[in-house]
Amino acid sequence: MGWQKTFALERRSKGCHLVTDEVLSQIRPGLQDVKVGMLYLFIQHTSAALTINENYDPDVRRDMDMALDKIVPEHLNWVHTDEGPDDSVSHTKTSLVGTSICVPITDGRLNLGTWQGIYLTEFRHAPHTRRVVATILS
Amino acid sequence: MGWQKTFALERRSKGCHLVTDEVLSQIRPGLQDVKVGMLYLFIQHTSAALTINENYDPDVRRDMDMALDKIVPEHLNWVHTDEGPDDSVSHTKTSLVGTSICVPITDGRLNLGTWQGIYLTEFRHAPHTRRVVATILS
Amino acid sequence: MGWQKTFALERRSKGCHLVTDEVLSQIRPGLQDVKVGMLYLFIQHTSAALTINENYDPDVRRDMDMALDKIVPEHLNWVHTDEGPDDSVSHTKTSLVGTSICVPITDGRLNLGTWQGIYLTEFRHAPHTRRVVATILS
Repeated sequence: MGWQKTFALERRSKGCHLVTDEVLSQIRPGLQDVKVGMLYLFIQHTSAALTINENYDPDVRRDMDMALDKIVPEHLNWVHTDEGPDDSVSHTKTSLVGTSICVPITDGRLNLGTWQGIYLTEFRHAPHTRRVVATILS
Repeated sequence: MGWQKTFALERRSKGCHLVTDEVLSQIRPGLQDVKVGMLYLFIQHTSAALTINENYDPDVRRDMDMALDKIVPEHLNWVHTDEGPDDSVSHTKTSLVGTSICVPITDGRLNLGTWQGIYLTEFRHAPHTRRVVATILS
Repeated sequence: MGWQKTFALERRSKGCHLVTDEVLSQIRPGLQDVKVGMLYLFIQHTSAALTINENYDPDVRRDMDMALDKIVPEHLNWVHTDEGPDDSVSHTKTSLVGTSICVPITDGRLNLGTWQGIYLTEFRHAPHTRRVVATILS
């Protein structure tokens, strides 16, 4: 039978944030005893995303945030800007980076590569608290 | 034991389309009785994608289609244009947006956020019918 | 009970590479006897990605590599360039294309569309061997 838990990530403003430890502290009870399985993390929002990337140098997170701003610039002809110039921009970035990640579980641990960590990519300038649904199947 | 069904989404032309209700009408029998599980939707094509985004304002869908045209423009030096200038463009967009989505299931319902819906992003100008494989594991 | 195997993909340099057959040769024992299930492929690196795209014309792979270079250009103001101008560029491309793919399994076979294949997208200029964790749940 699957394990599931909904939790909130700490309030953060725009940027790429390494959240591996924060996620692990929430899902540890579900990981234990899973010999072979999968963890799915699903963010219940449309202006922030989850991804896996480099876990060591904070400059990678700054670079990725800078690059996403160039790839999806605020100066395009956006129509939906009710909540500011980062409104539709954030929605488009969400679909490029993705709403969920899947991570293999092996012997009760996330089977990440040496340099991999879990990122929350927050696209709104104003700080937000984000809800995540974690599901483990085995 | 997993549940699986292949179905076709209605014929649509280029754009981002909200298909949550159409998908739900196809998968309802598989959702029932699943207390904790995952839904996987996989589109069997390489010129259209699936994603999760804002379910309320149609302008978000127009904005996202406009932005994807800027991010992957038809005027690049494409070689594979057998089926028109939207050919390789559509393939590249597919890999950026993604061929599949994963959605958590809780107590027989998709556990989407308040503002989340399922999008079909059709990249070809000509209308297409797209096949989707839905799988539910619990 | 889930099936899992970690394997290395052949050493390849920058580009989009069709690896369906190489993957199949590794996972065949796990696929057999799965009537309904899912295959998850997870790459344990942050400078290469996995995606699903057109399996026939090699020009599509060349076009996609060219387009990704335009979308995430080396001339941006990158800070993290310890390993060369393709360093942070490769990390950003990884989060756009994605670290994992999910493919439905039906009657012991990957249920891909006619024109779909599995791509390794290698973003570093220098050739690399990449580790993949394959997990099958049913």
